[in-house]
Amino acid sequence: MLEFDDLKKLLSDPDSLSTDLSDLGDYFHDATEYSAPPLAVLMARNRDDVTAAVKFCAERNIPITARGAGTGLSGGCVPSKGAMVLSTEHLRKLQIDPEAKTAICGPGVITKELTDTAEEHGLTYPPDPASYEESTLGGNVAENAGGLRCKRFGVTKDYVIGLEAVLADGSVLRTGTLGSGAGFSLGDLLIASEGTLAVITEIAVRLVSPSPPGTTILASFSSPRDAAQTVSDITTAGIIPTVMEFLDGDAAACSNEYEKTEGLSDAAAILLIETGDGELGVQASKIRDFCEKNSCRLLRIEPDHQKAEALWMVRRNLSKATKELARYWVSEDLAVPNSRFPELVDYVAQLNAESPVRLNSYGHAGDGNLHVNFLAPSDSPKIVAEIERVIDLLVDRALALNGTLSGEHGIGLAKKMYLDREFDRPTLAVMRKIKSVFDPQGILNPDKLLPDPE
Amino acid sequence: MLEFDDLKKLLSDPDSLSTDLSDLGDYFHDATEYSAPPLAVLMARNRDDVTAAVKFCAERNIPITARGAGTGLSGGCVPSKGAMVLSTEHLRKLQIDPEAKTAICGPGVITKELTDTAEEHGLTYPPDPASYEESTLGGNVAENAGGLRCKRFGVTKDYVIGLEAVLADGSVLRTGTLGSGAGFSLGDLLIASEGTLAVITEIAVRLVSPSPPGTTILASFSSPRDAAQTVSDITTAGIIPTVMEFLDGDAAACSNEYEKTEGLSDAAAILLIETGDGELGVQASKIRDFCEKNSCRLLRIEPDHQKAEALWMVRRNLSKATKELARYWVSEDLAVPNSRFPELVDYVAQLNAESPVRLNSYGHAGDGNLHVNFLAPSDSPKIVAEIERVIDLLVDRALALNGTLSGEHGIGLAKKMYLDREFDRPTLAVMRKIKSVFDPQGILNPDKLLPDPE
Repeated sequence: MLEFDDLKKLLSDPDSLSTDLSDLGDYFHDATEYSAPPLAVLMARNRDDVTAAVKFCAERNIPITARGAGTGLSGGCVPSKGAMVLSTEHLRKLQIDPEAKTAICGPGVITKELTDTAEEHGLTYPPDPASYEESTLGGNVAENAGGLRCKRFGVTKDYVIGLEAVLADGSVLRTGTLGSGAGFSLGDLLIASEGTLAVITEIAVRLVSPSPPGTTILASFSSPRDAAQTVSDITTAGIIPTVMEFLDGDAAACSNEYEKTEGLSDAAAILLIETGDGELGVQASKIRDFCEKNSCRLLRIEPDHQKAEALWMVRRNLSKATKELARYWVSEDLAVPNSRFPELVDYVAQLNAESPVRLNSYGHAGDGNLHVNFLAPSDSPKIVAEIERVIDLLVDRALALNGTLSGEHGIGLAKKMYLDREFDRPTLAVMRKIKSVFDPQGILNPDKLLPDPE
Repeated sequence: MLEFDDLKKLLSDPDSLSTDLSDLGDYFHDATEYSAPPLAVLMARNRDDVTAAVKFCAERNIPITARGAGTGLSGGCVPSKGAMVLSTEHLRKLQIDPEAKTAICGPGVITKELTDTAEEHGLTYPPDPASYEESTLGGNVAENAGGLRCKRFGVTKDYVIGLEAVLADGSVLRTGTLGSGAGFSLGDLLIASEGTLAVITEIAVRLVSPSPPGTTILASFSSPRDAAQTVSDITTAGIIPTVMEFLDGDAAACSNEYEKTEGLSDAAAILLIETGDGELGVQASKIRDFCEKNSCRLLRIEPDHQKAEALWMVRRNLSKATKELARYWVSEDLAVPNSRFPELVDYVAQLNAESPVRLNSYGHAGDGNLHVNFLAPSDSPKIVAEIERVIDLLVDRALALNGTLSGEHGIGLAKKMYLDREFDRPTLAVMRKIKSVFDPQGILNPDKLLPDPE
C-alpha cells in the first residue's frame, strides 16, 4: 500500500485517499449481493484528482473502479480485483441555466438534488430511478438509469447532452454540448458503459418544464395475465400514462406485509398508474374502462396528487420490503416489447409456481420492463444454483420475446455471462475492440460488462 | 474496370453493378454542390450483395461510399476518390408490427413510405426531414436527420431501436432490439456516422400514435430579433409547439418570389408555428400574446389543418425557391441553445448587411437550429472565398454561443474542416481510433466526417 503514498502527494487533499479499509466497508459493494475489497478508496475533490489518479494507476497497471452512491443493481461499481475505488461523490458542482434549460452537473450530484434545484427554477429533470434520493448523476449515466416515468419521459440517455470524461491515459474527452449531431456520438457510447471506458467528470443535461400531476389509479386483478392485458390494451390504444407500474400478487403481498394497503391482500396483480394527458378525465376514464374490461377487482381513482402519495408507497416500499423479507436477495431486470409483456408475465407466474424459491415481480410495465426478485432464506449452494437456473430460463425467454437482458439496471457483474446470448460474435468483437480503444491496458473497471474472454 | 466483372459473379443480379457511368450522373453528387465520379455503382438487391461487395472491395482496397437517395446536404454520400458507390435504394423491406409499434425497414425505404404505411395502422413515424418524400431511412440514419417536428418529437436517433450493418470485414453487426440498455451503444455510434463505420442494411424503428393536428400560426415581424425573441419567450414559457419555423426577411422574400403569400412581401422575419397540445385554444392564445408582445405585424391563425397547408407551403417551397434563385448555392446548418437563438439571428443579419453575397436564413427555431443559405450568381473564386469567409465567422459564433457545427445536416465534406473547432484533440483522437476499429483499412467512405490528418 506504500505506493499510494506517492499518489497522495499528487492530490488536492492527501486525506481524500485511504488504504485503511476498516471504515470503508460500504465501498466493497453496491445494492446487490456482490462484494469485494478495494486496495484503496479515493474521494476525488476535482477533475485534476481524477486525472492524477488515472495516470498514476495506468503507470502501475492498477485497476480503477469508479463509483457514485453505490445504489446500482448489477454489481457495476463493485471493486474489480485489486482495484482502487475512485468515488466521484464529492464532485457536486451544480449549475442550472434556467433560460437554456440545462444543468451542468458533477457526477456526484444526487439525482433528487438535481430535480429539487431544477424545481426552484420551474423546471424538472424527469428520470427518476427508484433510488433517486441517493443515486448520483454519474451512476445514472454509467448505468443509463430509467425510472418510474421513463416510458413517457425517457431514460437518462434522453437527457444527457454532453459529457466530460477522463480517459485511461489521463487525457480529457469532451463530447458535444447540444447532444450534438457533429462527429461520432461518443457521449452515447459512454452512457451505460459502467466506468469501463472512461471516468465521467461532468454531465450536461437538458431540463424540461414539468407536466401537471395526473390522476392516480390503483387497480387489482385476479390474475397477472389480466393486468398485463390491461397494460397491452392501454398502450395499444395509444395512451401513454406518466407512470404505469405492474406488481404481481407476490410483490403486492410483500408490500402489504411491509405496510397494509386496502385491496392488496388478495390481489393476484396490481397496476399503479398516473395518467399523463392534459384532459385528465378522458384518459382516466379510458384506463378505467380497460381495467373493467379485464375484470379488475378493485379500482381506486385518486385525482388529488397529495392523497395519491399513499398509493405510490405501495410501489416505493417494495424494494425495502423485498430486501427485508429475504436473507439472500437477487433482483433480475428484463425488458420485452410492450406487446409481449403478457407472455413474460405469464412465464414468470409459471416459474414462480414451479420453483421452490420465493419469487416476485414488478416493473415499469409501460416500458415492457419487469424486475424479477428472488427472496431466499440463505445463500446456500443449492439455493444459488436454483436461482441461477431460473434466471437462465428467464433470460432466454426474454430474448426469445425480442427483449433484452437489461431494462435499466445495466450489465455489471450480474449479466455479463449472458451478453453473448443477446449479441452475436461480430457484435461482441466490436465491443471488445472499442473497450481496447478507450482502455488499452484494461485498467478501467475490468471484468465488468463484457463477457470473460473465451 | 475489368476487376468489377469478378464482383458481378458474386452478386444476386450481375446487372445491379455498372461501370458505365454515362447514365449514372445522379450518383456523382448529393443535394450540395460537391460532385465526384465513382468507379462503379452497385444497386444492392439484398444483404448478401452488400457483404460480397464489401469483402471484394476490402481485398482490393477499393473505397466504398454507401448512398440512399442522395438528398443529403453535407456531401456525405458524394463518392470518395476512387470509390464504388453502394446504393441501398433497392433494399426496401418494410414490415410493420402494429401491436409492438415497431417497423423493420430496409435502408432504401423512403421516409414518406414509412410514414404512410405506419398511418395505415393508425401509427406514425415523426421524423420529417424536408426531403422526406425522397430521402431514405438509411440516409436519415447515416446523417441523423431531423425535421420540422424534431423539437417536439425528436430526431431519427430517438426512433431507431436497432440496426443491422455490414462491417468492413464483411461480418454483420446487430445492435439491440429495444434500444437495448445492454452492452455498449453501438447503434448510437452508427447513427450519424455517414457510412464511415459500416454499411447499414436494416433499421428497426419505433412508431407512435399520431397526435391530433394543431392550430397553424403565421406571424410576420419588423425585425428578425423580434421573431427570435418570440421564439425564446415561447420556449421559456415551457410551450413546445409541434413545429416552430423561423424565416428571416430574405427567406420570406425568396419564398414569396416563388409563390405569392399575403404578408410575406415586406416581412423582416416570419414565424410559422403549429401548436402541439390537446387544449389547442390555450396554447394558440399564449403564442398569439407573445407574438403581439414582440410587435408582430401580421398574425394569421388557422385552426383548420387542410387550410393551413397553404401557409406551410411558404416553408416547404423554400429549398426549391432558394436553389432556383441562385446559380451557386451553399447551405450552412448550425444550432445553438434556444436561449442563444436571438444572438445567432442577430449575427446573421449583421453578416447579411455586410457581405456582398446574398444570404437568407431559416430553420427549426424550437430546436435552436438555423440554416443559412448563400445564393450566388456563380462559383467564381472570389465568391467562393467570400462564402467561406462568412461561414468561418458563422461557425465560430455558433460555437461561441455553446452551439454545434451541425444541427441536422451532418458533417460529410462540408464541415469536416471545422470539426476540430468543436472537439479538442483528445476527443478527435478517440473518434479516429473508433474509425480504425470499424474500418482498419480506411475503405468506408474515406475523407468524410473526420478532418484530414494534420
